[in-house]
Amino acid sequence: MADYQSDKQTKQAITRRDLLKLAGVGGLGVIIGATGAGSVMTLVEGEAKKAAASPSSSNDIVPFYGKHQAGIATVAQNHVYFASLEVTTSSSEDLKSLFQEWTVATSLMTQGQPVGETTTNGYIPPKDTGEAEGLTPANLTITFGVGPSLFIKNGKDRFGLKSKQPKELVDLPPFPLDALKEEWTGGDICIQACADDPQVAFHAVRNLIRIARGKAILHWAQAGFQRTKQADANKETPRNLFGFKDGTANINVSDEQAMNKHVWVQSEDGPAWLENGTYLVVRKIQMYLEVWDRTILREQENTFGRYRATGAPLGQKEEHEEMDLTRKNEHGDYVIPENSHARLAFGDGTQKILRRPYSYSDGMDPKTGSLDAGLLFLSFQRSPATSFIPMQERLSRMDKLNEYTIHRGSAIFAVFPGIKEGEYIGQTLFG
Amino acid sequence: MADYQSDKQTKQAITRRDLLKLAGVGGLGVIIGATGAGSVMTLVEGEAKKAAASPSSSNDIVPFYGKHQAGIATVAQNHVYFASLEVTTSSSEDLKSLFQEWTVATSLMTQGQPVGETTTNGYIPPKDTGEAEGLTPANLTITFGVGPSLFIKNGKDRFGLKSKQPKELVDLPPFPLDALKEEWTGGDICIQACADDPQVAFHAVRNLIRIARGKAILHWAQAGFQRTKQADANKETPRNLFGFKDGTANINVSDEQAMNKHVWVQSEDGPAWLENGTYLVVRKIQMYLEVWDRTILREQENTFGRYRATGAPLGQKEEHEEMDLTRKNEHGDYVIPENSHARLAFGDGTQKILRRPYSYSDGMDPKTGSLDAGLLFLSFQRSPATSFIPMQERLSRMDKLNEYTIHRGSAIFAVFPGIKEGEYIGQTLFG
Repeated sequence: MADYQSDKQTKQAITRRDLLKLAGVGGLGVIIGATGAGSVMTLVEGEAKKAAASPSSSNDIVPFYGKHQAGIATVAQNHVYFASLEVTTSSSEDLKSLFQEWTVATSLMTQGQPVGETTTNGYIPPKDTGEAEGLTPANLTITFGVGPSLFIKNGKDRFGLKSKQPKELVDLPPFPLDALKEEWTGGDICIQACADDPQVAFHAVRNLIRIARGKAILHWAQAGFQRTKQADANKETPRNLFGFKDGTANINVSDEQAMNKHVWVQSEDGPAWLENGTYLVVRKIQMYLEVWDRTILREQENTFGRYRATGAPLGQKEEHEEMDLTRKNEHGDYVIPENSHARLAFGDGTQKILRRPYSYSDGMDPKTGSLDAGLLFLSFQRSPATSFIPMQERLSRMDKLNEYTIHRGSAIFAVFPGIKEGEYIGQTLFG
Repeated sequence: MADYQSDKQTKQAITRRDLLKLAGVGGLGVIIGATGAGSVMTLVEGEAKKAAASPSSSNDIVPFYGKHQAGIATVAQNHVYFASLEVTTSSSEDLKSLFQEWTVATSLMTQGQPVGETTTNGYIPPKDTGEAEGLTPANLTITFGVGPSLFIKNGKDRFGLKSKQPKELVDLPPFPLDALKEEWTGGDICIQACADDPQVAFHAVRNLIRIARGKAILHWAQAGFQRTKQADANKETPRNLFGFKDGTANINVSDEQAMNKHVWVQSEDGPAWLENGTYLVVRKIQMYLEVWDRTILREQENTFGRYRATGAPLGQKEEHEEMDLTRKNEHGDYVIPENSHARLAFGDGTQKILRRPYSYSDGMDPKTGSLDAGLLFLSFQRSPATSFIPMQERLSRMDKLNEYTIHRGSAIFAVFPGIKEGEYIGQTLFG
C-alpha cells in the first residue's frame, strides 16, 4: 500500500475548482490560499490541524489511504455506529461534492482531528461538533458504500449512473421468515464508523450527516458493541449474546489470497469502478434471549453445531478443529445435526463471507417486555450472489437458530475501493 | 471499609434456611453441603468459581462489599446498562429471596465470575448466559435501589413496608416542559450496572433479570456511554454530546466530608434502613443535536455559561475557576447570563448533587428523522427535596438549555447502603 500513500501525481484528481466549491457549499471553513492545486488537500488538513485542541497519539490510528477502504480487513474495533442515508439532492454535482467533503472530513477524523475549527469568533457555529475533543483517534475507521436505490429509484435513473450499476447490487431476495421493517431496511448510502470509543464513532457519523445537510438525510442508524480489545489480546473468539463463540470459521483478514478470492472485487468481476471494493450485507437480527436462556444446553449446542464452552464443533475437542460432517451417533443421526447453524452456513465449504458483526441492545422491546437485543450482522463479500445469498437461503429455510431469532432489517451496499492521497472516496464512480 | 470486609460475625445474617430456599426457588444451582451456615455464602462462591472458565484479573475489580454500594463514589466507568423493574410477586418472602439471590450473583459477577456454572450435563440450561466468559471483570459495579411504588401502589401497602417508606421517596413533582413517557418513567426497583465493557454490563443486567423470573420483570432499560478511560488518564472532564465539558463543578468523590454532607443519607436523616445509602434521580433527556449544531458559538456558550473550548466560566480563563456571578459587561448584562445552565444549576451554591451521567444514542428518532440521542442523567443526593428538586425547578422554568433538550423519562429510587460479607443488599429494609 506504500505506493498509494506516496504517489503525488494523482493529487490533481481533486481540482482547485472542486475544492473551492467544496469550501463554499459544504462549509468546511478552509481558506484556499494562493497555492498550487496539488497541495490544496494538504492545506485543508493543515487548517484543521491548527484548529485541533487535542494532540493525537499515533498508536491508535488506522491508516485512511490504501488500496481498500479501512474498516473491512481491519481487526474489528469495540464499537460500531452504522448509518444508512437517503440522498435528497437530485444534482450529480452535489453528490460528487458530498463525497469530496466526506473524504476530507474522514481523512481528518480518522487521524484524531476535528473536521474543522472547534471554536469560532462566536458568530457562527463551530465546524466540528466537539464531543470527540480530548479523545484519542481510537482506531476510528469510516467505510462508505452505495445501495441499489442510488442508481435506480422508482424506475428513475437518478444520477445518470444506471449503466454503472453492478449486476450484483440489487435488493436481496426475500427470505422465508424475514420480518423486515422499512425503518431498518435499505438506503442509498451507508456509513460504517468503527472505533474503540463509542463517542468517537458517534461523533464521526454525526459530523458526516451534518456535512450532508441539504444533500442527504439519515434513513436509519444502529449502534453496536462487541467484547473489549482486552479479549482480543487473549486471542479469544468473541461471544455473541447467546453466549457462543462467534466467528471461529471466519476468513483470516491477514490472508491476502483468501481476501482476494472471497472479499475484494477483482478486475474480472466488473464493474471497473468497484475493483478492490466489496459488497456489504447488513441484517439487523433480533435475538430472543429469554427463550434461548430457557433452552437446555444440549439443544443450544445442537442448534449451533458447536459446544458452548470451547466453541469446538460437536464431536471434536478444540475450537479450530474442522467439522466432521459425516460422523453419526449410535442412533444413526449426524453428530452435527443437519439443521445446525454451523453445518448449514458451511454448506459445501465453497461459499465464504467475511463476517464483521456487532451485538446491539436497544433497551426493552415494548411489545414483549423482553430485552430488545441481538446482532447487527455485517458481512463483506466479493459476490453476494454466490456466497451470502445461497448461504442465507439454506439458513432461512432450515436453520434451527431461526426459532430464536428474527430478521428485522436488511440492506446491501457496494463498498468503494480505497483511495490515494488527493483522490476522494467514490471517485471511480462519480469522477 | 476494612472492618466490613473482615467482620465474620454477621455472616449468620443469611441463614441456612434462607439459602436452601434460595437454591430451590431461584436455581442458582448451589449444593448446600454439611457445612455450617456461616460459610454457606463462601460455599456458593466456591462452586461458581470452580465453574468459571475465565481467570479474572484483579486490576479491574471494584470491591463489592463496603459501607456504601459501589457504582456511586466509583469513578464512572465507560458504560452503563440501566434497568428499571416492576415487581410481579406479592410475596414478601419472594422479594427478600430475590435480593438474596441478586446479592450472591452480584458478588460473583463483580469479581469476574459467572453467576453459576456455564456448562451442564446438557439437560438443563446453563446458569450463566455465557456472553461475558473470557472477558475481564471490567470494573463492573451493580447498584440497587427501590422506587416509591414498591411501598405503595394504587393505594396498597404491597409488602407491609409502608411505615418504612422514606418521606423523600416520592414521585418527583411535575416540572414545566416535562414530556415524560410511561415507557421511560418510574419503576419498583432499579439496577445500575456500570463497566468498562458494554458486554459485561449487559450480561450483568440480563442475568439479574433472568434470576428474577416469576418475581419481577423489566419495565425499561437504557444503555449509555461516555468517553473512554484514556481520557480519564488525561484528567480531562468528559464532554457531553453538545460538545461541552460536563461535570466540572461536580462533587469530588474522594472528598468524604462532601460525600457525607451531600450524598450519603446520615443517621439523623432517617429512615434507619437507608443510612449510608442515598437517593438516585434518573432523567432521560433527549438532546436536539441538529438544532444545537446550527446555533452560533456565542449562543451555545451563553446557554451553558461556559466556554466550549476550555470549560471555563464565561469571563474566566481556566476550567476550574469559580463563576463570577456579579460581573457585568459594558451593556450592563451579567457576563454569565441569568438564564444560563451553569448559573441556574449553581443557584446560591448550597444545593449539591453528585452527577454521574452517561450519553445515549438510540439510532434515529422516526418522528423527526433526527438522531435520537441525549443524556441519561443520573444523580445521587442525600436529600432530593433540598437539592435536585429546587435545582430542577429553577432549570425547568428558566434554563436556556431547554430550547435544545426535552425530558422523556424520570424516576427516583432509594439506593441501599452497602453490605458486609454474609449480608444481602436490601437486608436493612427486608430483613
